[in-house]
Amino acid sequence: MIVESTDNKTYKYLKGFLNKKQRRNEEIFLIEGIKVVKETILEKAPLYIAISTKIMDLEEIKEIENLVDDSYTKIIYIKDKIFNSLTDTENSQGIIAYYNFIHKKDISNIKKGKFILLDDLKDPGNLGGIIRSAEAFSIDGIILTKETVDLYNPKVIRSTMASIFRVNIYIIDKKDQLLDLKDDFKIVSTAFENSISIYDFDFTDNIILTIGNEAHGVSTEIFNMSSEFIKIPMSDKINSLNANVAASICMYEMDKYGKNISK
Amino acid sequence: MIVESTDNKTYKYLKGFLNKKQRRNEEIFLIEGIKVVKETILEKAPLYIAISTKIMDLEEIKEIENLVDDSYTKIIYIKDKIFNSLTDTENSQGIIAYYNFIHKKDISNIKKGKFILLDDLKDPGNLGGIIRSAEAFSIDGIILTKETVDLYNPKVIRSTMASIFRVNIYIIDKKDQLLDLKDDFKIVSTAFENSISIYDFDFTDNIILTIGNEAHGVSTEIFNMSSEFIKIPMSDKINSLNANVAASICMYEMDKYGKNISK
Repeated sequence: MIVESTDNKTYKYLKGFLNKKQRRNEEIFLIEGIKVVKETILEKAPLYIAISTKIMDLEEIKEIENLVDDSYTKIIYIKDKIFNSLTDTENSQGIIAYYNFIHKKDISNIKKGKFILLDDLKDPGNLGGIIRSAEAFSIDGIILTKETVDLYNPKVIRSTMASIFRVNIYIIDKKDQLLDLKDDFKIVSTAFENSISIYDFDFTDNIILTIGNEAHGVSTEIFNMSSEFIKIPMSDKINSLNANVAASICMYEMDKYGKNISK
Repeated sequence: MIVESTDNKTYKYLKGFLNKKQRRNEEIFLIEGIKVVKETILEKAPLYIAISTKIMDLEEIKEIENLVDDSYTKIIYIKDKIFNSLTDTENSQGIIAYYNFIHKKDISNIKKGKFILLDDLKDPGNLGGIIRSAEAFSIDGIILTKETVDLYNPKVIRSTMASIFRVNIYIIDKKDQLLDLKDDFKIVSTAFENSISIYDFDFTDNIILTIGNEAHGVSTEIFNMSSEFIKIPMSDKINSLNANVAASICMYEMDKYGKNISK
């Protein structure tokens, strides 16, 4: 069956997810694009996949159909003329998958590992890039403060690629929840003064490494919880790196440190 | 004198720079924002500074006026109502500085150092971020292929901050100009197969390190010119990093390598 009318009930329901409020209420987010949908289906089954008639006969769509467990995932074919109103992506490829939220809320059960804490980060591109680097450098999880940019913002999703399904992501309501982890983890913040160069830092222990807000840095609350401070050595003329770059270099060093130790 | 009319000749001239063609023809680019204009005036004198009447009495504007050499730079005050048509920035702060292009074209006289070659990079945010990291990690210069995104694209400028004035940037017409540098430099490309981990790479020599296009990687032409290949070790599940992150990690390692050697 192909949906041809904008009055169709399922069409109207899917169109509602353009609205952030409906995404929040139903805890559903969207991923677009043939390649990324095909890749992510293997990670997690979507609830719905909307496919435009303009691409329904492509070989790649047949492959996606074969990968889908149709007892869980519903595929909806939509007349090309009305498909574009389901998305705000320019030049949509013609496929959207709808997934349940994937983040966790309870950090009380994390006991060991290397984590990145994003302390009110605001730029969607930075968040997406950090998730991608976190997967590349085998980070155990990313913790987002509630004030950090929406994880399910379409720009974040586009820049994470499929990594969003392969990285443990936590969103915490209150920063003081981190206090409960202080026995098991070193909380580390980036700072310019009285800080240790990451060239020399000992990354052996369980660590929660904080990356601060793009404009204001690490918040006072997290700064006061931190037991150690590190910096990335750089030219005197410049006093900060892009947040994604700074986070990625820290993750790269943590990963390298672990690999060198295990040699 | 305050420009009050859109018929004013200078106003019309400045407004023309919204157009890429006029920017190219006159070799002029724009920087916006009080903080960044103040910082960049110390690096290089702009030709013009347009200031909106809404901010002309601020203390920071007086400081900028005092820093300006008025034999070279012309300050133009513009009625707030018509100022916004000079820019496509939403929520403009009310100040725009106009500078001559700063890139160089002749790479034949570079003889030593660490350089980054951007091989048809397309994303303005990536280019801006790489310029910022290049300053942080004291890279000797960045070489852009002609097909790389426009250096003077407003998004590039916003993300470089003032680093654009403090990093040597070259734009080359043809990739084969790099062949002339092969005697003095190792040309290094990133690659997955038959490549050396950057953990172990010897960064002692003069190096031109290539970062490829976001979608297609390093071009065949540059690949064939390369004498060495490196990779950033990462999880098997992911096969690339964001271009800015990859470039920045390479620059970080080059800088660290140099500092450790000179110890």
